[in-house]
Order: sequence, then C-alpha cells, then structure tokens
Amino acid sequence: MPHQIYRCSSVFICGFILCSLRRLGQSRFTIAISAKIAGRQFLLAGILIMGLLWLFVACMVAQEVDAPRFDGKDTLLRPVGYREWVFIGSSLGLRYDPEAAEKSRPGSERYHNVYINPSSYREFSRTGRFPDGTILVLELASAAQKNEPGLQGSYQDKFVALEASVKDSRRFEDVWAYFSFDEKDGTVKDKAQPFPKKACWSCHNQKAETDHVFTQFYPILRQARPSK
Amino acid sequence: MPHQIYRCSSVFICGFILCSLRRLGQSRFTIAISAKIAGRQFLLAGILIMGLLWLFVACMVAQEVDAPRFDGKDTLLRPVGYREWVFIGSSLGLRYDPEAAEKSRPGSERYHNVYINPSSYREFSRTGRFPDGTILVLELASAAQKNEPGLQGSYQDKFVALEASVKDSRRFEDVWAYFSFDEKDGTVKDKAQPFPKKACWSCHNQKAETDHVFTQFYPILRQARPSK
Repeated sequence: MPHQIYRCSSVFICGFILCSLRRLGQSRFTIAISAKIAGRQFLLAGILIMGLLWLFVACMVAQEVDAPRFDGKDTLLRPVGYREWVFIGSSLGLRYDPEAAEKSRPGSERYHNVYINPSSYREFSRTGRFPDGTILVLELASAAQKNEPGLQGSYQDKFVALEASVKDSRRFEDVWAYFSFDEKDGTVKDKAQPFPKKACWSCHNQKAETDHVFTQFYPILRQARPSK
Repeated sequence: MPHQIYRCSSVFICGFILCSLRRLGQSRFTIAISAKIAGRQFLLAGILIMGLLWLFVACMVAQEVDAPRFDGKDTLLRPVGYREWVFIGSSLGLRYDPEAAEKSRPGSERYHNVYINPSSYREFSRTGRFPDGTILVLELASAAQKNEPGLQGSYQDKFVALEASVKDSRRFEDVWAYFSFDEKDGTVKDKAQPFPKKACWSCHNQKAETDHVFTQFYPILRQARPSK
C-alpha cells in the first residue's frame, strides 16, 4: 500500500512539474527582466532534474522485480533474491512416493522451505487465485541433530537443492511448469528447462488442493486467502 | 505490469489536466503582469508543498515500518505483517531443555518458523551485526502427518504460539528481551511484557552463536552475513 501511494503521488507530481515548466516557459515572454529570467531558468533546470530523477525512482519502485525470468520460450533463469520473498511453509521429508517400499529412515529426510513471489502472494491474498507470473521456489535443506547436552529436535543444516514452479498460461500449454536447478555434481545451475509432464505436473494436478499448489500443507496460504 | 503502466499514466494525465485547468483559469489575468507574478509565487509555493509531500511519502517508504512497537517502556505490541518479513529458518522440536528426562515423543514436536524484520536483515547482511531495533518473531506450528497412500513426512498444520525477541540497548538493561503473545486459553494477545531474565535470556546468552541469535541453526543467516 505505501508503494502504491508513493507511486501514484510521485507520478502525479511529475505531471504537475512538467506542466508548470510549460507555463513558466511561456511566461518568459510576458516579463522582460533578463536577470529574473536567468534565475528562473536555473530554478527550472533544477526542478527538471529533480523531476526526472524522481520519475526514475518511481519507475524502479513501480516495477515488481519478482516476476519469473525466462531465456527464450520456456527456459527459466534461476530466481534471485527469493529468500526475501514470502515464506509459505516448511515441511520435513514431505513427498508423494507411492513406489517407496518403506518410509524414509530418520535422518535422511530433508526440510522443504517454500517461498512465493510477493506480488503473487498479494494477489492470492486479495482474490484467492494464483495469477499468471506466480513463481514458487522450493529450497531443500539437510536436517541435522546436534549431540549437545539438553538439545532436542532437528534443524536445517545445509541447502542441498533448488526447484521452482511457474504459472503462465500463455507460455506453457499446461499452465504450470516445474524446474530443478540442481546439477549432478551438487552445484546449482543458472537456468533450467521444464520437467516432462509426468515428473511433477501430474502429481500436483492430482493432489494439490488449490490450482497445483499444496495449500493443504501451507497454513500461511490458507490464512492469507480471503474467506469465502 | 500493464496495470502499473495504466495506473501511472492515468494519474499522470490527471495531474496534467488539473494543472492545465489552473493555467486556463489564470489566462484571464494575463494582461496584468502583477497577477502573473502573484501566480508564479503561488506556483512556487505549490511546488514547494508538493515537494515536501513527496519527501514525506518517500521517507515513509524508505523507513521500514518493521521496527518493534512498544506501549510504554518495555511492553511490546504484537508484531503485524511479520509473515512478509524475511524467513530465516524452520526447525522441528528444537529446544534446549536440560531437565527433560527423555526426548520428546514423535508427533508432539512443533515446527518453529523464525522471521526477522527486513531492515535488520539488510543491516546484518551488510555488517554481520544485529542493530538496535532488531526483532525476531518465532511462530510455532503443530506438526501433522496424513494417512494418505504414498505420502511421507510431516508438515505444518496449525499455528499454536507466537513469541518474539527484540534488541534495544537503550530500552533494555540486558540489551535483548523476550516476549510471548500466548494467552493461557490458546488465544493471542495484543501486547506482552518481557520474560524474566532466567526464562530465555540466559540460554540465548550462553548458547547462541551470534549476539543472542542461534545462527548455528540458521543457514540463511550464515550465508547472508558478509564473509570475513
């Protein structure tokens, strides 16, 4: 909300200044005191510079820099700054795996931290829907336990994987697409091609409560959406 | 993005029209130079007022509204909007409890989501230090497991507690203070008094790696701070 006020007022004032400049420019011809004019020109130049500077800052603010970025049609560039996005949930060892013969052994499970880009979070809070341009980032961390007197429980130790899902009905035939930025050698890559449909899409399509998003596991999203 | 362009351009045009109306209105007096001068003074005053207004709004935006808010000397008002702050970590059942006879039984453990106010996060990223005005919010969620074919692991179900720590060397004799917003009936209260020193402070003081903050459990903070 402060962003919007700032944006609107700054653009309004830019219009005002530009217009005033025109007016002052015309009045040059009505008053014939050259010293006055020189002084006024200096003032005008100052105001013009301020106005332009201002327009630049307003544009910087107006542009949400949290949209997914692509290389070509469907190659997703690795999101940056997502740790300052909106965190929507963390889970431990949570996954659908119908073919797993037995449950994961304790200690091998991973924490899943999930973030959403802020503009899509705000849209979801307003409408209960995920807009085109929604990007969810899944960052996986190893779970650790310390052998320290009196310390119980597990915590996140090292980040081990980075994945993302994007909703874009104009870009993807199936609306949502899924990506992994993990190289086989354990490093993180800069861009990723979407997974084939059967890898993530099918499960999200079948099991997720709200438009491919597992809101059943994210109390933050359930509380954020407007009540029906 | 198209919305923003539309909004900006429409507000810009509104400013332009309003300004033009003023100009037209004034043109009735163009013959009298004195009126012109008066008009110019009026314009300058207008620009000055708008400039100050702008400065005010810009300051509002620049000033993160994420500082801890107090009632009196040390009663902390419940933080709002913290779910859009910077998430720094989640753990499961993590706590120091030297007197616990045995480990918590699985299922009774809680997830601990921890957030930091964005301005302090940025300061920490720059300097590696937590400034006065740092506030960390700890939100506890119950852990759940679903009996669903193929689903493994646990996830966050319901939020059950809300706590906070604040650093303020001018307000608190011991620099850091700790608060809980939980009523005994399970509701959340609007303000909280600091805990006595032995409740949280001592343990944080003794065990936390970085100035009362358990960075040993928060890989996000370890990665955010500048490398030495």
